[in-house]
Amino acid sequence: MQSTFDETRDGFQAVRFDGRVLELIDQRRLPQTEHWLRIGDIDGVIGAIADLVVRGAPAIGVTAAYGAVIAAHQRGKDLAGWHQDMERLVQARPTAVNLAWAVARMRQLVAGQGDLDADALAAEAGRIHRADIEANRAMARAGSAVIEPGSGVLTHCNTGSLATGGIGTALGVVIEGVRAGRIARVFADETRPWLQGSRLTAWELARAGVEFQVIVEGAAAALMASGAVQWVITGADRIAANGDVANKIGTYALAVLARHHGVKMMVVAPSSTLDPAMPDGAGIAIEQRDPAEVWRAAGLEAMPAGFAAWNPVFDVTPAALVDCIVTEAGVARPPYDFSTI
Amino acid sequence: MQSTFDETRDGFQAVRFDGRVLELIDQRRLPQTEHWLRIGDIDGVIGAIADLVVRGAPAIGVTAAYGAVIAAHQRGKDLAGWHQDMERLVQARPTAVNLAWAVARMRQLVAGQGDLDADALAAEAGRIHRADIEANRAMARAGSAVIEPGSGVLTHCNTGSLATGGIGTALGVVIEGVRAGRIARVFADETRPWLQGSRLTAWELARAGVEFQVIVEGAAAALMASGAVQWVITGADRIAANGDVANKIGTYALAVLARHHGVKMMVVAPSSTLDPAMPDGAGIAIEQRDPAEVWRAAGLEAMPAGFAAWNPVFDVTPAALVDCIVTEAGVARPPYDFSTI
Repeated sequence: MQSTFDETRDGFQAVRFDGRVLELIDQRRLPQTEHWLRIGDIDGVIGAIADLVVRGAPAIGVTAAYGAVIAAHQRGKDLAGWHQDMERLVQARPTAVNLAWAVARMRQLVAGQGDLDADALAAEAGRIHRADIEANRAMARAGSAVIEPGSGVLTHCNTGSLATGGIGTALGVVIEGVRAGRIARVFADETRPWLQGSRLTAWELARAGVEFQVIVEGAAAALMASGAVQWVITGADRIAANGDVANKIGTYALAVLARHHGVKMMVVAPSSTLDPAMPDGAGIAIEQRDPAEVWRAAGLEAMPAGFAAWNPVFDVTPAALVDCIVTEAGVARPPYDFSTI
Repeated sequence: MQSTFDETRDGFQAVRFDGRVLELIDQRRLPQTEHWLRIGDIDGVIGAIADLVVRGAPAIGVTAAYGAVIAAHQRGKDLAGWHQDMERLVQARPTAVNLAWAVARMRQLVAGQGDLDADALAAEAGRIHRADIEANRAMARAGSAVIEPGSGVLTHCNTGSLATGGIGTALGVVIEGVRAGRIARVFADETRPWLQGSRLTAWELARAGVEFQVIVEGAAAALMASGAVQWVITGADRIAANGDVANKIGTYALAVLARHHGVKMMVVAPSSTLDPAMPDGAGIAIEQRDPAEVWRAAGLEAMPAGFAAWNPVFDVTPAALVDCIVTEAGVARPPYDFSTI
């Protein structure tokens, strides 16, 4: 059912399913080790999502869809048991919008049929995966076309094949732009505290044969001042109705620095990231994570007495600092109006 | 000879000398371990400077002065041998301005006397150390007085007792400001790639009983947007005649973010940091360091094939983004004129 995945066009297939068994590359062990997990039961799928074997909202959604198929094989005709599995699946990462969305779609199919049909569920999971691959291709083409030939770009976090079902969102634009000869220089923020840039984006770019340089986030301003970068390109966790963008911590800093240096800012995300019910970014709560994430880099597993950290997981970039937002429907520019998508 | 060092006023004495033996806290092992090295020979002093047991320009200068005393004890009347030691001492960190300055001052004393007098050298080293302690006190008072009561501050890198002979430069202002009741909230950048903030500044602030929170550098913009910070306070490696400031990578980013958010920017450095021969920051070369520094945080000792990093050690902040520069001579404001210092 993944015949449409094309490694040349779509990057690295980090989520694989043969109809019975799910294969996931363990992202926690990259880039040191390319270790694959083979998962044939729903508890294994739930554990893989909860333990960050797989991360990135679209990749989690695709994984969950295949998990629903695996649960159906285990449950046979036990519809109530399957629904219990789906409830636990959604709770594996309660804040992941795409996870809840994918599970809801599988439940809708079952509701329409009245019983569990593993083959029908597998076909639906394949459609979800293929739609993500196609959306990624469309975003990569549309975003790349905006970039002036010879440009340098700076990206943040990981938004590629490890985070989606296909070539990625922002990283898809970067790879497509390099292949189309439009992007001449690629820089990636290491992205503290989880280092998704230096661990995952670096691994993906090297695998795709794209030359790049990783920077610490403190170097982004000096890089822009040097003239090496013309575009900042990031993904999004959520986009409010007015175009305010919630994304990985550090994105807002890049947007401010970009505007100061005359560098443009592009946000790339599937339309499922748009939240028309959220009028602007002021309503988006800034979630705090475990301060231990900050201290581990300093060699400390726990904080010594008197130590403390402020560790927000994302920030909000005002729409006024975003030059364009790319979805599978095309390129939107301010003032943003997503009512037709 | 260090009778003027007062732990209450001057922080933590990281460089100690009893007339014969130098004691240094090993900064490479902080904050996990408070390990002291006892050094009684010039090779040990040179090694400690070269291997970053001690870092921070003023602290290196004080250490080098005591090293000249130790070498005089070893050499007796062998003036030529002592000069060879001094040459090797200067080469331990060739780009450290304060190291060359302190050694030059010890050589000047010897030139004036015509022979090696370890007691006279010890007195001179004590004067160098005491002058640094006094300069730090003066900067702390002057900088603190500028800050509006109730302010929050964000600092960068490590500029405290571990980097100087006394309470520090920027961190001296922070600690004095807290003690004077003017600073209500203290934030410290972790400062990638060496983590001087989360390792050293955090350790010093906890030891001084100052409440603080460390942030990853990507969180600085969100922190400023939250309204928690009114001043960014940093040190400087070199200040050009027009007030352009070269400092640890990430300083320029903070200055741009500060201006965008209406946050003020203070630079604190002894007048020895001023470089009247450098008209502006354009002439300051951006030194690149080993990319391995970036990859170690991702668990990689060496870069895999295809991986690359851009790892500048400092950046240049234009004078126009700096609201005031504090030296032991007082508070300077733009347009900067250091011709009288």
